[in-house]
Amino acid sequence: MPLSVLQQLQDEMLCLPGAGCSLMEMSHRDQAFIDILHDAENSIRSLLNINDDYAVLFLQGGATLQFSMIPANLIRGTDKVAQYLVTGAWGKKAVGEAKKEGNVEVIYDAKESNYNHVPKAADYQVRDDAGYLYYCSNETIQGVQFQEEPESPAGVPLICDASSDFLSRPLDIRKYGMLYACAQKNAGPAGVTVVIVRRDLIDAGQPDLPGYLNYKNHAEADSEWNTPPTFAIYALGKVARWLVDDIGGLDAMAKLNQEKSQLLYDVVDAHGDFYQGHAVDCCRSKMNVTFNLPSDELLKKFVSEASAHNLASLKGHRSVGGIRASVYNAMPLEGAQTLAKFMTDFAKKNG
Amino acid sequence: MPLSVLQQLQDEMLCLPGAGCSLMEMSHRDQAFIDILHDAENSIRSLLNINDDYAVLFLQGGATLQFSMIPANLIRGTDKVAQYLVTGAWGKKAVGEAKKEGNVEVIYDAKESNYNHVPKAADYQVRDDAGYLYYCSNETIQGVQFQEEPESPAGVPLICDASSDFLSRPLDIRKYGMLYACAQKNAGPAGVTVVIVRRDLIDAGQPDLPGYLNYKNHAEADSEWNTPPTFAIYALGKVARWLVDDIGGLDAMAKLNQEKSQLLYDVVDAHGDFYQGHAVDCCRSKMNVTFNLPSDELLKKFVSEASAHNLASLKGHRSVGGIRASVYNAMPLEGAQTLAKFMTDFAKKNG
Ligand SMILES: Cc1ncc(COP(=O)(O)O)c(C=O)c1O
Ligand SMILES: Cc1ncc(COP(=O)(O)O)c(C=O)c1O
Ligand SMILES: [Mg+2]
Ligand SMILES: [Mg+2]
Ligand SMILES: [Mg+2]
Ligand SMILES: [Mg+2]
Repeated sequence: MPLSVLQQLQDEMLCLPGAGCSLMEMSHRDQAFIDILHDAENSIRSLLNINDDYAVLFLQGGATLQFSMIPANLIRGTDKVAQYLVTGAWGKKAVGEAKKEGNVEVIYDAKESNYNHVPKAADYQVRDDAGYLYYCSNETIQGVQFQEEPESPAGVPLICDASSDFLSRPLDIRKYGMLYACAQKNAGPAGVTVVIVRRDLIDAGQPDLPGYLNYKNHAEADSEWNTPPTFAIYALGKVARWLVDDIGGLDAMAKLNQEKSQLLYDVVDAHGDFYQGHAVDCCRSKMNVTFNLPSDELLKKFVSEASAHNLASLKGHRSVGGIRASVYNAMPLEGAQTLAKFMTDFAKKNG
Repeated sequence: MPLSVLQQLQDEMLCLPGAGCSLMEMSHRDQAFIDILHDAENSIRSLLNINDDYAVLFLQGGATLQFSMIPANLIRGTDKVAQYLVTGAWGKKAVGEAKKEGNVEVIYDAKESNYNHVPKAADYQVRDDAGYLYYCSNETIQGVQFQEEPESPAGVPLICDASSDFLSRPLDIRKYGMLYACAQKNAGPAGVTVVIVRRDLIDAGQPDLPGYLNYKNHAEADSEWNTPPTFAIYALGKVARWLVDDIGGLDAMAKLNQEKSQLLYDVVDAHGDFYQGHAVDCCRSKMNVTFNLPSDELLKKFVSEASAHNLASLKGHRSVGGIRASVYNAMPLEGAQTLAKFMTDFAKKNG
């Protein structure tokens, strides 16, 4: 999270301005909290230009619970087929949960190329009567990102797991039936998941669903069907406001993220016999820059020397290894510059 | 939350001692966070004397998701019957969710006396082969509390919603198959629910359950099956440590809570023709003191004058009206004294 946001959280911890007490001591039914929740919602609406055809919900359970909620609401108990594009680990997990709920078809799986790219529209065929088309816009672990939305036939809702690139760039929400993201990458602390869902899809949930899993309950109660994660929503609201006020919106944010990631990809490309980038050029993520080193020894050395330079969290995900440098919204340009310089020096010394 | 805990959260917001960064910037896989999670778990284990026969899980979705998870894990797909004691609004909601998952019998419902008491063992009969016996130890809205556990036949797991009296008094965990509580009343911020569950019950969840709803996933991954609500767990750990170090454990906490609630009940009893206590004597809650006033006008006047004395959140739950004074762990004795004095003065002036 941006330092200025952390500072606000600190300043307001004992006493929220205007409220006379800490947010932690407030009931979620207090008007002061309801105002905070609506502020957070409105900032997101304004950043992404979301009109009232969509609900904006704040839920618990992480992106992972959405893997189940989506098919449980949209295909459970029907003979509809949900179609999935799998471009990395998170899409694959989503398929695993969806299969428990109904008919699922994986219409594209980038497994054979070790998840180093995303498909073009010509690479897959969506049924006209599909329940929905699902994809993950940015595969956090592999570092591959869709540069634009997949194509979905009219009448087939497009559903996107945007957990790791939410609020990192502008998008046209009208292309989506639903877009969701856990907050902990770009938007706030762990513990809240933002679900933006077209209202006609909300009605699909059947009354025999576990109540918490039914979007209708949350939408009708304005995310207060049960106690929402109040502090996480409050912090997320601060981050959204920082994007509006300090960064100047998502065009500006996207430009900065482009710049940060390009600094790193440039080093990878300049030392192409030393660093092996994972994603093919067209699909490189502007959030997670993934590459490998010539040997396990050099990989270890890279991580440990980086850490001595205060560059932490560079180890790739357990499941794939290598290096993953994440340049989420909160990382300032200087952070990427420092890392780029370290990478150049390291390649020169060890290449 | 106790002021000293809020102060620690404030002090550590920008930089967690020893970690070199804010908790908010940390991955849930960082050892520093895993240590925090284990600390929180260990404090709870030590406060309640919980041995390794039980897992202690930190989940999202609130107590409400447990209403579904419990029957989904323990009776879905079987012909077992789950039996419920209903002593207020929360038990009733739990029944509603359980019925979606399997066979449910309400073997006691205090509805006819407007939920003003809890049953004695002679008032209900538990089947020897019941899937489990469920109750809510403290009905937050009605202010009725079990003074001791219901009796359950050997082999029938006792399951307790302790959301509003968790960590308020000692208990013998060995009497329970499972005890759970959302944190926001006594134990921390909204956004985390503590589930203490005997390990043999964890194995009951079937693989076709939505993954997030399966206790096995969370238990095997030590509450890191997916990203846990890191800040809420951290804050909860601080509250648990405050109970151990500053309060001196749950015997001391229970004594203080008894004292606080008694101050208020004494005023109710001293002005018995003015204040109408809701719960019958033997079942009065030590967390939520509920009573009514002679008229709607006096009720409104009470709330508004109290609020001018800085006594907030006294309005009863929308569904029952009247007054509910909550004296959760974090409320100091002085708070209860101030309220008691206000109540006495108000009764004298308006009685
Ligand atoms: C793209 C993506 N989807 C889903 C998840 C899972 O989110 P959670 O751990 O909150 O369930 C993550 C990351 O953690 C992610 O990066
Ligand atoms: C006894 C009890 N059970 C369940 C709940 C529901 O908890 P949540 O809102 O976290 O789902 C509450 C209170 O909010 C409660 O007091
Ligand atoms: Mg979440
Ligand atoms: Mg709304
Ligand atoms: Mg919770
Ligand atoms: Mg453990």
